[in-house]
Amino acid sequence: MKLGVCYYPEHWSEKHWETDAKEMHEAGIDIVRIAEFAWAKMEKEEGIYTWDWLDRSVETLATAGHQILLCTPTAAPPAWLISAHPDILPVDEKGRRRRFGSRRHYCPNNKTYHEHSKRITKAMAERYGNHPAVIGWQIDNEFGCYFARCYCESCTSEFQNWLQKKYTSLDELNERWGTIFWSQTYNDWGQIEPYNLTVAEPNPSHVLDYYRFASDSWVAYQQIQIDALRANIPKKQFITHNVIADLNTIDYHDLSRNLDFISWDSYPTGYAEMGSQNLYAPDEESFAYAHDLGDPLITGFFHTLIRGLKQAPFWIMEHQTGAINWSENNTGVRPGALRLWTWQAAATGAEAVVYFRWKASRFGLEQHHDGLRHHHGGANNGYNDLLTLKTERQALEDFIAHPLDTPVGILLDYSTLWALEMQPHRKDFAYLKHLFVFYRACKMLGIEPDIISPQADLNRYKVLLAPNTFLADEVLAQNLDNFAAQGGSLMLGVRSGFKDTNNVVTEEPLPGLFRELVGAKVAQWHSLPPKIAYSLQSEIPVFYPEATFWAEALKPDTGTKSLATYTAFPFENSSAITEKKHGDGKVLYCGVYPDAKQAKALMRFLLVAENIPILDIPDGLTVISRGKKLFALNLTESPIVLVRKSNPYRIPARNFKLIEG
Amino acid sequence: MKLGVCYYPEHWSEKHWETDAKEMHEAGIDIVRIAEFAWAKMEKEEGIYTWDWLDRSVETLATAGHQILLCTPTAAPPAWLISAHPDILPVDEKGRRRRFGSRRHYCPNNKTYHEHSKRITKAMAERYGNHPAVIGWQIDNEFGCYFARCYCESCTSEFQNWLQKKYTSLDELNERWGTIFWSQTYNDWGQIEPYNLTVAEPNPSHVLDYYRFASDSWVAYQQIQIDALRANIPKKQFITHNVIADLNTIDYHDLSRNLDFISWDSYPTGYAEMGSQNLYAPDEESFAYAHDLGDPLITGFFHTLIRGLKQAPFWIMEHQTGAINWSENNTGVRPGALRLWTWQAAATGAEAVVYFRWKASRFGLEQHHDGLRHHHGGANNGYNDLLTLKTERQALEDFIAHPLDTPVGILLDYSTLWALEMQPHRKDFAYLKHLFVFYRACKMLGIEPDIISPQADLNRYKVLLAPNTFLADEVLAQNLDNFAAQGGSLMLGVRSGFKDTNNVVTEEPLPGLFRELVGAKVAQWHSLPPKIAYSLQSEIPVFYPEATFWAEALKPDTGTKSLATYTAFPFENSSAITEKKHGDGKVLYCGVYPDAKQAKALMRFLLVAENIPILDIPDGLTVISRGKKLFALNLTESPIVLVRKSNPYRIPARNFKLIEG
Amino acid sequence: MKLGVCYYPEHWSEKHWETDAKEMHEAGIDIVRIAEFAWAKMEKEEGIYTWDWLDRSVETLATAGHQILLCTPTAAPPAWLISAHPDILPVDEKGRRRRFGSRRHYCPNNKTYHEHSKRITKAMAERYGNHPAVIGWQIDNEFGCYFARCYCESCTSEFQNWLQKKYTSLDELNERWGTIFWSQTYNDWGQIEPYNLTVAEPNPSHVLDYYRFASDSWVAYQQIQIDALRANIPKKQFITHNVIADLNTIDYHDLSRNLDFISWDSYPTGYAEMGSQNLYAPDEESFAYAHDLGDPLITGFFHTLIRGLKQAPFWIMEHQTGAINWSENNTGVRPGALRLWTWQAAATGAEAVVYFRWKASRFGLEQHHDGLRHHHGGANNGYNDLLTLKTERQALEDFIAHPLDTPVGILLDYSTLWALEMQPHRKDFAYLKHLFVFYRACKMLGIEPDIISPQADLNRYKVLLAPNTFLADEVLAQNLDNFAAQGGSLMLGVRSGFKDTNNVVTEEPLPGLFRELVGAKVAQWHSLPPKIAYSLQSEIPVFYPEATFWAEALKPDTGTKSLATYTAFPFENSSAITEKKHGDGKVLYCGVYPDAKQAKALMRFLLVAENIPILDIPDGLTVISRGKKLFALNLTESPIVLVRKSNPYRIPARNFKLIEG
Repeated sequence: MKLGVCYYPEHWSEKHWETDAKEMHEAGIDIVRIAEFAWAKMEKEEGIYTWDWLDRSVETLATAGHQILLCTPTAAPPAWLISAHPDILPVDEKGRRRRFGSRRHYCPNNKTYHEHSKRITKAMAERYGNHPAVIGWQIDNEFGCYFARCYCESCTSEFQNWLQKKYTSLDELNERWGTIFWSQTYNDWGQIEPYNLTVAEPNPSHVLDYYRFASDSWVAYQQIQIDALRANIPKKQFITHNVIADLNTIDYHDLSRNLDFISWDSYPTGYAEMGSQNLYAPDEESFAYAHDLGDPLITGFFHTLIRGLKQAPFWIMEHQTGAINWSENNTGVRPGALRLWTWQAAATGAEAVVYFRWKASRFGLEQHHDGLRHHHGGANNGYNDLLTLKTERQALEDFIAHPLDTPVGILLDYSTLWALEMQPHRKDFAYLKHLFVFYRACKMLGIEPDIISPQADLNRYKVLLAPNTFLADEVLAQNLDNFAAQGGSLMLGVRSGFKDTNNVVTEEPLPGLFRELVGAKVAQWHSLPPKIAYSLQSEIPVFYPEATFWAEALKPDTGTKSLATYTAFPFENSSAITEKKHGDGKVLYCGVYPDAKQAKALMRFLLVAENIPILDIPDGLTVISRGKKLFALNLTESPIVLVRKSNPYRIPARNFKLIEG
Repeated sequence: MKLGVCYYPEHWSEKHWETDAKEMHEAGIDIVRIAEFAWAKMEKEEGIYTWDWLDRSVETLATAGHQILLCTPTAAPPAWLISAHPDILPVDEKGRRRRFGSRRHYCPNNKTYHEHSKRITKAMAERYGNHPAVIGWQIDNEFGCYFARCYCESCTSEFQNWLQKKYTSLDELNERWGTIFWSQTYNDWGQIEPYNLTVAEPNPSHVLDYYRFASDSWVAYQQIQIDALRANIPKKQFITHNVIADLNTIDYHDLSRNLDFISWDSYPTGYAEMGSQNLYAPDEESFAYAHDLGDPLITGFFHTLIRGLKQAPFWIMEHQTGAINWSENNTGVRPGALRLWTWQAAATGAEAVVYFRWKASRFGLEQHHDGLRHHHGGANNGYNDLLTLKTERQALEDFIAHPLDTPVGILLDYSTLWALEMQPHRKDFAYLKHLFVFYRACKMLGIEPDIISPQADLNRYKVLLAPNTFLADEVLAQNLDNFAAQGGSLMLGVRSGFKDTNNVVTEEPLPGLFRELVGAKVAQWHSLPPKIAYSLQSEIPVFYPEATFWAEALKPDTGTKSLATYTAFPFENSSAITEKKHGDGKVLYCGVYPDAKQAKALMRFLLVAENIPILDIPDGLTVISRGKKLFALNLTESPIVLVRKSNPYRIPARNFKLIEG
Repeated sequence: MKLGVCYYPEHWSEKHWETDAKEMHEAGIDIVRIAEFAWAKMEKEEGIYTWDWLDRSVETLATAGHQILLCTPTAAPPAWLISAHPDILPVDEKGRRRRFGSRRHYCPNNKTYHEHSKRITKAMAERYGNHPAVIGWQIDNEFGCYFARCYCESCTSEFQNWLQKKYTSLDELNERWGTIFWSQTYNDWGQIEPYNLTVAEPNPSHVLDYYRFASDSWVAYQQIQIDALRANIPKKQFITHNVIADLNTIDYHDLSRNLDFISWDSYPTGYAEMGSQNLYAPDEESFAYAHDLGDPLITGFFHTLIRGLKQAPFWIMEHQTGAINWSENNTGVRPGALRLWTWQAAATGAEAVVYFRWKASRFGLEQHHDGLRHHHGGANNGYNDLLTLKTERQALEDFIAHPLDTPVGILLDYSTLWALEMQPHRKDFAYLKHLFVFYRACKMLGIEPDIISPQADLNRYKVLLAPNTFLADEVLAQNLDNFAAQGGSLMLGVRSGFKDTNNVVTEEPLPGLFRELVGAKVAQWHSLPPKIAYSLQSEIPVFYPEATFWAEALKPDTGTKSLATYTAFPFENSSAITEKKHGDGKVLYCGVYPDAKQAKALMRFLLVAENIPILDIPDGLTVISRGKKLFALNLTESPIVLVRKSNPYRIPARNFKLIEG
């Protein structure tokens, strides 16, 4: 477990550097991340490098005992570069070329920018790759922040190349996309443009491929830098990238693949403000929301999701230390927050937590973003929290030395996320919300699930959830079949098997490729507007007997059991949830879109059947087990009592407890 | 009465065609609509036609006993055409040229596109005009869907031509538009551009003319195809076009004029979702809204409005068969819905109902749009409903053989609609809402009104409503005068006579050109914000004594009677509603904006005075009389009792009853 | 005190002119404002002037006894000019060049437009400068209406010049803006563009300078016309400009400086609709809002603010006379309104009230904007109100002959307004709202405050409020120090001293440059979301003991007194409000964002300490003292009793009373 801090020596007079390094050390900081966004300072004009300041910064930090993480500065190309090559600037969905004057102002498909990115990366790697204090590299910063899809001329022609490579022939593309619809048949690759600015909504297969192409563009752009670094740095230096929680535009599974580990930037109060709209149901209040501590379920959901990207520990490359500057209210943060957040992060799988940032910025956009220390250098609450944390460091490391048990897997597939985003069919039908409702259900039963790619190693899990397997192919169908056949407990959710991976609807009855595996047919599917519910009867304990939001009428095959049945017109006598034995395991199909309580009842039903020990977690509490130890976090205003193995444990308000045995 | 289906043979393997044709026939389908959006399949490159597939499709359908309706494919110009002539693409209000990749991507004023439209239409007409199974033609598809107003260079120069033709001289235009206001005087026709992208809001006379010009552009574009067809098809083949319910941008009176009949596309659940905002008052709940059946008043309003366009029966060219894909919730549709909808449509004047579509599309934008049959070919609810309907077909035809009696006319004028849309003066003051409130009032009294053009034959009606005759000219004033003089009962509503047809305010006291006819002066007019009401006293039975939303203070001339009088400051002692005898008839001026109940009280008052028999229709019921028979439709969850001639009739829930005698 | 009317003779047939002039005179009108927007009529083609109509209009009005105010017509350049020089048209924030067809369609930095503006202004001045009836000139009309910031090529290069002049060297600019942040360092002036269309949010120092540059552009553009006029008119003719209440984009202190007096356009019902969102707190209902009379506190706030621009009386150049056309509901206006509004305006410092407009316009955008007379020439309510006012004219003039006493100053600084607008940090944190809450507090205690520039003469005041002195420099710090040292009572509010005038955060502990003056340190600052409050104890009478919205934890120095102290975590034991003696006066720092009642308690505390006599104004009443007389205005529906010197005075509903002695 390591603690670090983001530092911008170029923002401060050199006279502060030594003191800064010393004060970092005193607070228990091990690692300092530098050089992000410093291109203009490293290279004032094309080819004129000025490394002296960075050399001195590296030495000062190393001397104070710090390990150094260097960033490539490509998230902010300098004015001279843009001025010479304005075609580097991206074009937005409305067709406007954007301007210099902030950050992330480049198209990932611009060849000129590729060359300059390679050049500056290589130059840095050559200069610092062998420095003993340098432990690793962060590439660029937060791909996909602000935008991930550019619509410029470079993108247009690269998209055509990408399509040509994927489909080989135009006939194949026309067939796969169904361009016969609305007479969209292409005669020439050059006719295929980005999907933006069409008169009506564009072809969903076209859009999905553009989304994939855009995602691939960032992965490929990152690879340029990985290659430039790897060729010039020693093996022991790691390469990572820091992603954001707004994870809807780049396939993070792809982006993670060639990195040594993945990192993410965690801002609990900001995500709590956003997430209460993005992750909770519209009629639901965010649970245990703490304006000055964030929502531990939302914070934890992202930790878990990031851990799942490589099914491995991760870093937090930027961690909130005080008020942020980009949410609606940017609330003040409670003294002590940073300690609790760090514990939760580590317990959930973070190997390092790098705090953002050392001192609050005096200029530029992030002036209202707190640091560990104030603008004037004085300690802010975060710094004081670190001093407390220092005294607990050993306890923390002891706790996380125990393994994390994750018996449940939840599938996350980017193509499905994108396909449902563009065609939700019903307002508020959102893929991540559906994943989140199951994540919460696990957490409320004391279980830490994994959120994983369909291509991940599934055999680690006893229970596998596929809440919306909207896009499906034979490989996925086979993998899920194998999982169940080998004894796993698999549950598919609504709209599964609806489409192929070209975003084209199956020719078979639903759930399409899963028809045999599920042992039931989806005869009808109804989007239900607010206030409308279809009544059910269910044998699943405490499953609230109503379908809302989305309901499917299932016809079980012989041998498939109905766990819940509709009791009134128009779906009366149809099944709502089915269960079928399959090999050594079983397959459920949940034909209703569950609310939080229904999801919990379903999870309890599945876990009990698998003899996985569960707990009844009171509202407001979040727990993580490691070996026999339990980390129980209470961010509410009042103490909460947790009963475990018949023993009551009192978790103090706004604090945590480690429960043993 | 005919039933049809929309079919896209090019979307399906030919092996399905024969079965499809047979199954259509078994369900009672008479007509199949094909070839819409199939340009790229008919003409793969400029001048290279491939008719073989369409020949085979026509033969297959004809052989199975179907009549065929062909569509010209111009709603979706192919990629090769756009690629060669990108100036065909329209420019939107924000000045952006839109892209290929969906549909309706053409400017109606593009000369190149005119030529290509003529060419493909002529080619189709030559090939299929003499086929015995082909009964008629649909031109293009849904003009005005997505946009009706293009702002490109072609439109700019055509607009200048249009203006030159209308005004002859610039002096005349400057005078009529009042360009002296804000120094907008034009010295050259070339200075007059589309009204979009001005700094402040543009001149309302300029805007109104652009709206008219845009509407005329579509009418003229349609005429190109009418001419190309008529020259090449036999007389017995009809020509129509299918309009949409979003009817605010093209003058459907003009568009209908040269068509054999008008058609429209009816999607009851979608319009119910939209209409509850667009047609009901802001504080009102949609009445008897059924999430899975739609709102029968909204559905009926559009049937009635479309019937009024030519004062003649109409076709439904696309009719919803299940869930749609373009509303907010896209709710599931109740089994049996299609039967009820078809009965209501036929009762209201539809001569044919063509269902959209045969099978749900597997690709392209409309994948989530249900068909009579599922993607996989199995029967969906709509298909089963057709089988039921087949058993009732004779009863339905017997019922509609009786004439429809429409004693009330409601004026619909596009220029007024547009003028009020651009200058509502008060939020939510919407022309169609005002028409709808009177339509509902009629329906709640058992009366089916006509909604008609001011140029229509008015003498058919006993009562004529002109809810907002905002723009007026001498011809209209004379027609209304004649109507009343010859014994009709005329009621004008608020803001009548405010402007001339140039969208310029009258120089006379209000109601301007109607001043003499009404026999009263509008001394003041007040927009009333929410929660503010002006008290009234009225002799109209059950007229709720409050003016809300909009109130006018009337000063009746000697001989004009006040039917309602304000009782408090600031309008105290002024009249709110006046009545004047005029020739053999009478003229009312309603100086308040009535809510639903007030409109019903007014209608009752007018109808009783004319001895027109009325009924008291309970909430939730919709009725249509034909001869002595009454079709009573109950889409609510509970049975409703209707009392007619002292007999109680119980209309079952979600069903209808035919009441005799 | 003078009364005037806005008149557009060019909109009406000359046959009406004489009658119009006579009827104006009969209603007590002294001044007629003409020629606004008449450029196309004065100069039909470049250099071809047609003055005859204007000569006749001037004569007709002069003959009827009117004084004449002429407007330069530059707010609406004619079509021939734009057609010849389309680069005059402004470019908006989205990068779109806007079109001819409304008004204000020019960039203030366009050199060609400068020349034409100079030319037409000079031509008018030469022709009418010596006319005995012409008393003065209005330049252009409502600078900043619709937009104040253009982003065209002229602006880009002028901005670069402006920066070069301000910073001399690029190094200085880079340093002052902190361009090192996100690698924004500039190597060439030509690289610096307008801040719009960046990918992320731009640098706040860059934005603030662009805001200033845009404001300066209008001031400089106005100066071109001032110079052209002054060179050609006699001294006795005044020069003014009419500003709008949407005052967020141009620095009105700068704009007023070289004018003889400032004027503004007052539309009470419109500002009441807007202001209830812009000036009141989100959870607060507008106080005593009258839909047909406006909110007297909002109306009065703007009168006061405008009076403060030059610390001098002002004109109302356009005053509402009936319904307007640009708000949401455009409510009807109560008969009598104009009389009450005129009294309030005069009592608050208006030397002249010019009514907008004589007759309602028949054409162009403002057709639904009432005038003193209807479109058809008949009297509207406003005209009748004038006749009443005529009988009270002497009483009004007697009242305003007494001096207005304004013991309290409230600072208004445009750079701070802009800086907080771009970085509010918390939703709804708005500078003007904060000013308004203190303005209201004064009014509710019977005090008329001044709202003034930090550069104004501060020594006139006993109490000085600086609610958010967010941007600070040494001069301001010294001026405030002097104010207190010389015996004044100064109160600073939250976020004071946070930044320097480059919009860069101070390097010192907060409140930065005010640290010594205040005698306390701001240790923490928390944005509080809705529903969260921090408890307090306070010795300020009736100060509600809770901080909401924004809270700062203060550490008083020795000798500084705490007037309020937080009582709970996280700020427990910190001070919330401090008071320090300073020289002959004192300095308070209010570390909470007060609601209306808290602001009133604070003001009472300050005023009582200064022995300034206060009144307890009941809700719904607005008062202004002049000498010993009190104007008490009650716009509510019910009479209100005011107790003054133990005497009860009953102010009738929707009326005012003059209280003596």
